[in-house]
Amino acid sequence: MNPKITIFVGSDSDLPVIVETTKTLEEFGIPFQLNIASAHRTPNRVRDLVKKAEKNGTKVIIACAGMSAALPGVIAAETTLPVIGVPMEGKNLAGLDSLLSIVQMPGGIPVATVSMGKSGALNAAILAAEIIGLSDPSLRKKLAEHKKKLALSVINKDVKLSKVGIKSYLESLKK
Amino acid sequence: MNPKITIFVGSDSDLPVIVETTKTLEEFGIPFQLNIASAHRTPNRVRDLVKKAEKNGTKVIIACAGMSAALPGVIAAETTLPVIGVPMEGKNLAGLDSLLSIVQMPGGIPVATVSMGKSGALNAAILAAEIIGLSDPSLRKKLAEHKKKLALSVINKDVKLSKVGIKSYLESLKK
Amino acid sequence: MNPKITIFVGSDSDLPVIVETTKTLEEFGIPFQLNIASAHRTPNRVRDLVKKAEKNGTKVIIACAGMSAALPGVIAAETTLPVIGVPMEGKNLAGLDSLLSIVQMPGGIPVATVSMGKSGALNAAILAAEIIGLSDPSLRKKLAEHKKKLALSVINKDVKLSKVGIKSYLESLKK
Amino acid sequence: MNPKITIFVGSDSDLPVIVETTKTLEEFGIPFQLNIASAHRTPNRVRDLVKKAEKNGTKVIIACAGMSAALPGVIAAETTLPVIGVPMEGKNLAGLDSLLSIVQMPGGIPVATVSMGKSGALNAAILAAEIIGLSDPSLRKKLAEHKKKLALSVINKDVKLSKVGIKSYLESLKK
Amino acid sequence: MNPKITIFVGSDSDLPVIVETTKTLEEFGIPFQLNIASAHRTPNRVRDLVKKAEKNGTKVIIACAGMSAALPGVIAAETTLPVIGVPMEGKNLAGLDSLLSIVQMPGGIPVATVSMGKSGALNAAILAAEIIGLSDPSLRKKLAEHKKKLALSVINKDVKLSKVGIKSYLESLKK
Amino acid sequence: MNPKITIFVGSDSDLPVIVETTKTLEEFGIPFQLNIASAHRTPNRVRDLVKKAEKNGTKVIIACAGMSAALPGVIAAETTLPVIGVPMEGKNLAGLDSLLSIVQMPGGIPVATVSMGKSGALNAAILAAEIIGLSDPSLRKKLAEHKKKLALSVINKDVKLSKVGIKSYLESLKK
Amino acid sequence: MNPKITIFVGSDSDLPVIVETTKTLEEFGIPFQLNIASAHRTPNRVRDLVKKAEKNGTKVIIACAGMSAALPGVIAAETTLPVIGVPMEGKNLAGLDSLLSIVQMPGGIPVATVSMGKSGALNAAILAAEIIGLSDPSLRKKLAEHKKKLALSVINKDVKLSKVGIKSYLESLKK
Amino acid sequence: MNPKITIFVGSDSDLPVIVETTKTLEEFGIPFQLNIASAHRTPNRVRDLVKKAEKNGTKVIIACAGMSAALPGVIAAETTLPVIGVPMEGKNLAGLDSLLSIVQMPGGIPVATVSMGKSGALNAAILAAEIIGLSDPSLRKKLAEHKKKLALSVINKDVKLSKVGIKSYLESLKK
Repeated sequence: MNPKITIFVGSDSDLPVIVETTKTLEEFGIPFQLNIASAHRTPNRVRDLVKKAEKNGTKVIIACAGMSAALPGVIAAETTLPVIGVPMEGKNLAGLDSLLSIVQMPGGIPVATVSMGKSGALNAAILAAEIIGLSDPSLRKKLAEHKKKLALSVINKDVKLSKVGIKSYLESLKK
Repeated sequence: MNPKITIFVGSDSDLPVIVETTKTLEEFGIPFQLNIASAHRTPNRVRDLVKKAEKNGTKVIIACAGMSAALPGVIAAETTLPVIGVPMEGKNLAGLDSLLSIVQMPGGIPVATVSMGKSGALNAAILAAEIIGLSDPSLRKKLAEHKKKLALSVINKDVKLSKVGIKSYLESLKK
Repeated sequence: MNPKITIFVGSDSDLPVIVETTKTLEEFGIPFQLNIASAHRTPNRVRDLVKKAEKNGTKVIIACAGMSAALPGVIAAETTLPVIGVPMEGKNLAGLDSLLSIVQMPGGIPVATVSMGKSGALNAAILAAEIIGLSDPSLRKKLAEHKKKLALSVINKDVKLSKVGIKSYLESLKK
Repeated sequence: MNPKITIFVGSDSDLPVIVETTKTLEEFGIPFQLNIASAHRTPNRVRDLVKKAEKNGTKVIIACAGMSAALPGVIAAETTLPVIGVPMEGKNLAGLDSLLSIVQMPGGIPVATVSMGKSGALNAAILAAEIIGLSDPSLRKKLAEHKKKLALSVINKDVKLSKVGIKSYLESLKK
Repeated sequence: MNPKITIFVGSDSDLPVIVETTKTLEEFGIPFQLNIASAHRTPNRVRDLVKKAEKNGTKVIIACAGMSAALPGVIAAETTLPVIGVPMEGKNLAGLDSLLSIVQMPGGIPVATVSMGKSGALNAAILAAEIIGLSDPSLRKKLAEHKKKLALSVINKDVKLSKVGIKSYLESLKK
Repeated sequence: MNPKITIFVGSDSDLPVIVETTKTLEEFGIPFQLNIASAHRTPNRVRDLVKKAEKNGTKVIIACAGMSAALPGVIAAETTLPVIGVPMEGKNLAGLDSLLSIVQMPGGIPVATVSMGKSGALNAAILAAEIIGLSDPSLRKKLAEHKKKLALSVINKDVKLSKVGIKSYLESLKK
Repeated sequence: MNPKITIFVGSDSDLPVIVETTKTLEEFGIPFQLNIASAHRTPNRVRDLVKKAEKNGTKVIIACAGMSAALPGVIAAETTLPVIGVPMEGKNLAGLDSLLSIVQMPGGIPVATVSMGKSGALNAAILAAEIIGLSDPSLRKKLAEHKKKLALSVINKDVKLSKVGIKSYLESLKK
Repeated sequence: MNPKITIFVGSDSDLPVIVETTKTLEEFGIPFQLNIASAHRTPNRVRDLVKKAEKNGTKVIIACAGMSAALPGVIAAETTLPVIGVPMEGKNLAGLDSLLSIVQMPGGIPVATVSMGKSGALNAAILAAEIIGLSDPSLRKKLAEHKKKLALSVINKDVKLSKVGIKSYLESLKK
């Protein structure tokens, strides 16, 4: 099946983070394509893969990069498909390098930036599903159910806490 | 005509920025609705307007806020429509307050964050158009043309510069 | 006994921090209610719990959240009870995301922000006790005693240091 | 009438900011005392004024300071009354100096920190009113009305915007 | 004469800064080519111009950009010529966006980053001259003389100050 | 009379700031020498002037610099006299460049860093006076009087405020 | 023997850092007094100890604190002795809280701030020795020797590196 | 063989980082000289070694330093050879101290700053090779091959990922 989403990571060291995206897309049953390609090391291949993605019916591109994270912006420069950027955590500069490199795009070439690291990788999948869901009622329904499950999970934890108290709850967290 | 995009600003002091969004949407011929509503001052109204937006066929929500910029996230909590967040510039804290408040959403509730201030307001419109364009070929064509015009404008400036030289060009900028 | 303080955490991962609050409130004998509820995942439940807190006689609300920490502000939007916000430490962005999201509230809707992490969780309890103590002389006395004990503990350490010297003191710290 | 609130500013250059506090307290009819006193230049006087405030029936202390803003913390060290800290904007270091100096108090000695500058000065008054309102039903009613008025003001702006459109609204902002 | 240096600015709004580069190169008699080209708006043209620069004998490329400043890195991805990056000042985020976007390049694709704004534009020219000077003894001599003049200018100011005193010197600065 | 203090500024653009130092030293009657010398532009001259300062009886060196502010550290590397560093305000990077460059000296080579800009320039003079005062009882007495005057000035403002009220005081500030 | 230096730490958790100060002072044979005292928890004791320090002949005060690090400034407010501030490392906010709280003192009340953590604790001792050395030629000679030894240690490492090569040197570092 | 590149590290603790530079230079067959020398601890030796480097035919100087990283700038002050600066990671202040100290050089004295830590150490070698390659066609060819290999390595990973899928790839990363 043709991918609806094409994901780019700048390096294979980003895979343990982007797996949050792929797992969530699988849960939603959204076909995707995953590529390792670097804006700085393989610029031609990035362009080729973007063109290929446009042709194979990709609706949304997700790009994940660290440090001077040019990948999402470089992709956005090549397409009019919506591009979602996921900033990688870094051990230096408080992670501001990847966040600011991705979000501060000049007028005309947007990147839809989500939160840093694993939360962002998960949110990239949800955001992509929300976009595709605009013309796919069954997907939109799944999103509504996912949102309810998310809420329910919080409520269940709250109910458990009110039952067992914070001391027992803390014990159970350690296990 | 029913709005395809609903825009929220947290305060009327954000209007001189968000006008970049509305002008661009008008250029693309995308109908929109614009509201002033505050996550902290009118929380109920925000919820009502989001529900109303869902009902009137809104496809994308754009929310613009400053300081502890809860508005985009609070809207995202209420809907499975894609929500785009525009951080307002602030005179304190280097603007990090609105950017980080908007972008750092927890897993499950994404906000598509764009750049700060006027560039971001413009990009919110483009991003929304890209999303709507996924099921509207004529809009997608307009986006491609807009992208070409943007490129052409840079090229024309480059050509002018090579003709007149930097000294004359700088003179013309002052005029 | 009706709670005088209602505590909200955005996620059960905040419990190991907020336990500093609950332990301190227990020391002061102040009844409290503890809830897990998320501004972004369970917005309705947050509102309901705030209304319930107002009805059950809660005097002060404490809210603890990380990242784009909307919870304290969203609660403050729903009540005229004093709301204390505790920013959670995060591994990214030097923790500025939760601090700035909580403290930079717009005019009219204050959140009383305390320090980040465990110190803040402890201080939220003290601040709540100071507020309740305004109409509870016996609690205010306990606060004065707590303050004296805190001072005494520092003085005792100083006396010990002057007796044993820094070398032995450092040894004793390691044990 | 005895002051219910004692306000400290570290310098008379803070008065144009703190006037937001005094105006709001006057609106609420809460008697207050305003002092200029510096943690670094008049430490004894700060102590004396805090002791005097405790004796004259002050319920809440508000302290406003810039740069290495020790004033709120130094006051908190001397009293078990709730202390609200207002960080002054500075032209250097993005204002982080006053914010971090005020908010990052060690365990046991809280300062209730509000937002930076004029918003914070206004919020300090509201927060103080919320605290005093806990034992003053008529004040609490005023707070609820103030909150409604705040909401109404946003809604009225929204209604006006929907009537006149953004172009006319922007014109009216310039006037 | 063939250019030894090719300069790229991302926008014509960068010209008032980059003029520091061109004036300095003219002083040193180094022929250069100046282009407006944007990594995000005209990615193909950037590549073409880099290839052209390589062919026309360019030794060093200077690239100047603001915000999510991908231009220097995108150029470095296309060439093995040394690339010097000049971060533009921005009014938001303390300028960290352009600095971090330019300097934090991944291993293998360096950008030689200089200081922000006009100082950096001047230094880009000097650095380029130092590089070209390695195989051009007369240029290297000019650099040594420039360095002496720079020192002499400081010394002359010091001599003037010791003669006229700070009061008169300050007066002369105002003129 | 031989200077007790030698002051270095990295550029004559720092003179409007350092005049706070010279005026204060004059008030205390402490003879000083003022030099313009740059760590990066006139490194030899800096060394010579430091050696000269050591010989002419200088007790304390004050150095003021901006951006990559190497001057205080480079001086500290050449002498065992106490060196006070004053970070200049900058319009970029929130001023963190000069502050961090000056304060973060490696073990063994301290620079006594004071606050940024005019406050720091004043404080450099006071700190130098405190150091020299250790062996000059009359100077130490002047410092105590200065401290009292500083306190008195705050107290007088407080007295004035309590007399005229904030409204009139604010009017008087504008004049 | 009377202490020439009085050291304050805000908490016994600072002792593993301040031991760098005490070890260095012992090497220089400078008698010192070490106290645990907190600006926020034991404000009276801090004042008393400062007065005591002034009477017992202390020449320089060193104060070390973390977070909202008011201790050095509060001490400086009470004395005209030179006060050296050592910012403690913190795990949050990149350590900016303690650094900015200590260094950004208002005009008239300087704190001589040194680098963060262990380097700063060592440098506080050296700076104190430099100050005391102004009237103690034998101490000044020791400082000069210490500086030479520091240089020699670097040179010896450089000689070793040139002999064994980086590979063997790296091996020896691991041992 | 005479070194073409002279490398300076400020401390032997920087050797585990700079080894990325030396390994890469060895790969390219570029002779280099490696020195430990400190701007603050051995300023004379730094000068001597720079003069020696100029005489022995060094083309490019690489300097690596942490904290208040004056070394690259101090070297740049002594020579008209291109100087490359590598900021060391630090555990405090998010690493901004070394980055800003190195990059923010005043007009006239550039330092070519590369990324922080190991990526930067690698990039310093590549940048130096690019500079030397300007007059050494065989080196330039090696750089082009290196760039191709870098691209090929990314492409091979992408091919592997498309073959084995993310699950197996993640397993292989752990091994």
